[in-house]
Amino acid sequence: MHSPLHRALALAEHALFLTPPNPRVGCVITGADGAVLGEGHTQAVGGPHAEVMALRDAAARGHDVRGATVWVTLEPCAHHGRTPPCCDALVAAGVGRVVVTNIDPNPRVAGAGIARLRAAGVQVDVLPADDPLARAARALNIGFFSRMERGRPWVRLKIAASADGRTALPNGVSQWITSPEARQDGHRWRARACAVLTGVGTVLADDPRLDARGVDAPRQPHAVVLDSHLRTPPAARLFDVPHKVWIFTASTDAVRRAALEARGAEVISAPAAPDGRLVLDAVAAELARREVNEVHVEAGETLNGALLAAGLADELLLYLAPRLLGAGRGMAALGPYAALDEAPALVWHEATPVGPDLRLRADVAGRERF
Amino acid sequence: MHSPLHRALALAEHALFLTPPNPRVGCVITGADGAVLGEGHTQAVGGPHAEVMALRDAAARGHDVRGATVWVTLEPCAHHGRTPPCCDALVAAGVGRVVVTNIDPNPRVAGAGIARLRAAGVQVDVLPADDPLARAARALNIGFFSRMERGRPWVRLKIAASADGRTALPNGVSQWITSPEARQDGHRWRARACAVLTGVGTVLADDPRLDARGVDAPRQPHAVVLDSHLRTPPAARLFDVPHKVWIFTASTDAVRRAALEARGAEVISAPAAPDGRLVLDAVAAELARREVNEVHVEAGETLNGALLAAGLADELLLYLAPRLLGAGRGMAALGPYAALDEAPALVWHEATPVGPDLRLRADVAGRERF
Repeated sequence: MHSPLHRALALAEHALFLTPPNPRVGCVITGADGAVLGEGHTQAVGGPHAEVMALRDAAARGHDVRGATVWVTLEPCAHHGRTPPCCDALVAAGVGRVVVTNIDPNPRVAGAGIARLRAAGVQVDVLPADDPLARAARALNIGFFSRMERGRPWVRLKIAASADGRTALPNGVSQWITSPEARQDGHRWRARACAVLTGVGTVLADDPRLDARGVDAPRQPHAVVLDSHLRTPPAARLFDVPHKVWIFTASTDAVRRAALEARGAEVISAPAAPDGRLVLDAVAAELARREVNEVHVEAGETLNGALLAAGLADELLLYLAPRLLGAGRGMAALGPYAALDEAPALVWHEATPVGPDLRLRADVAGRERF
Repeated sequence: MHSPLHRALALAEHALFLTPPNPRVGCVITGADGAVLGEGHTQAVGGPHAEVMALRDAAARGHDVRGATVWVTLEPCAHHGRTPPCCDALVAAGVGRVVVTNIDPNPRVAGAGIARLRAAGVQVDVLPADDPLARAARALNIGFFSRMERGRPWVRLKIAASADGRTALPNGVSQWITSPEARQDGHRWRARACAVLTGVGTVLADDPRLDARGVDAPRQPHAVVLDSHLRTPPAARLFDVPHKVWIFTASTDAVRRAALEARGAEVISAPAAPDGRLVLDAVAAELARREVNEVHVEAGETLNGALLAAGLADELLLYLAPRLLGAGRGMAALGPYAALDEAPALVWHEATPVGPDLRLRADVAGRERF
């Protein structure tokens, strides 16, 4: 059955690149006859939320929303954040009923919005958590749920490889294993993330810009480099892009730090393990503290393997090119394992042609949309 | 538009496991009003072809086929092979028109069937080669077309691997990377092939039976082992199965040969290159001479790589398990290449979930259904 929530979810999807670190939320207001009175989605940070946009839309269309039903893809907020509470706006407008897909995992909301609406006499219905619409609305904001519920971002490893899983030839050549179409698609995944993360090895080898190009995106994800020894060159191209640059390091080299800060980077101290590598759990927690929802990782096999081994990788976004390379570099430095069940397990959830390549997506097992 | 050829093709597909080394052919006979008068598909070798089955079906139903239209997924045969010519049977039955998807590539037919029908006053229409139905009928018998047109079989490499392209752990453990569902699906691909081929290394390591199990298949593919030095153990499990066993070798060791022949194997001498390996072109030509259409290869990375490097591999049938193994064995020993365009290119044509795994299919580029 088609519900106005389908339309609300589509509106939320329109805000894919717009709202981070806020969740993408869509809202539809219907009258007693089911006619749409107003609709909208969350705006950029500091702008109105979906419910307020829908109320304004209804007003602009000259509709009376008293007694109307509000369909919204996340519980209306109950706190004064960057905007006033949406539940108060709905109560003030006199709506009769609110249907929400999911309770807001933000501990400052977490049911308080629903309670305030009910206290004001508004009927509130919440979808069961396993309702397909509830799951889809959650998946759309998987990074926001991850940050709120787990205190760390949703980490997506983007890997471009040959059909036999090679990400580069033995001589390091990797540009371009996949097609322009796949690379363009990859930029859309960059654009929806709060941060694009890589290791200093990739910065030194490929000098990536770490921005989202060719996408109609109103904001750029932050660029994050894991760089234990501050080897990032101040001339790196990632500094040529108007995005925040965060460099995590265990180095105390003040000269290198100053040179990078002069290029606009924020250098963030992080603990290192005895082997000198950054403690990835600490990095993830700090990213969450900095309101990073989804992390888009484009790194080499060493960092990919370390994120998987640390249990911090949640999803694999894989572009498989139609070519067999034989010898070459792998996707993730893991193992050697003695038995198959020691190796990280995944759950496939997508296989789609993108140009001549295949886009495959999998969640790490046990973390399926967690 | 739905054509009776769709039904004829579906009938041909029902004969997938039945007819090799003959092509799978379906036939539908319709009356002036479009009603189906009779239908059928080719039987096992030595049995009637599709046209004769359809004529018999019409007779059994009491239908008069004079003036009727015959829809058939391959040109009716014109030669006395194991059965009399189908074109003569159609002429004798007095049909008015024959619509065929493809001209028979068998040089003993190759248009002669159509010519004989036309000479007898029957209208014959042939689909354009790029008609989707013509392409589908050709794809269904790709091995037959390959053998007739290229003098070698269609070679399909079946590979089970992890998401990162590993076919075994460094310690050799590979059972089971993929799921029971994927293995069962693989047996269906074995069953449609004329031969299942592997290298002696796989025989020694895994002792495979090389048969099609759990499939309702009326015939077993032949088991073919490439074994330069006749190292196949006479106690190998592949001898426990009621199928033909062909062992290609460059060895002249009469004792080993006799031991294998005593187990029912046919030992076939083949030329070896200076490095001692069998000349794969010669093996492929001999397989075609022996009426092998499709070869299903389940081998290790060495033989897979050699078949690809020799230009003899036509298709990749890949089962990707939802797991990352990191270190391990590859799909195909190739390279090292210095540039990406030196590596074998593919064209993806399928991505389908099979149980928890993905089945991916690709043709070698330039050989797409050739």
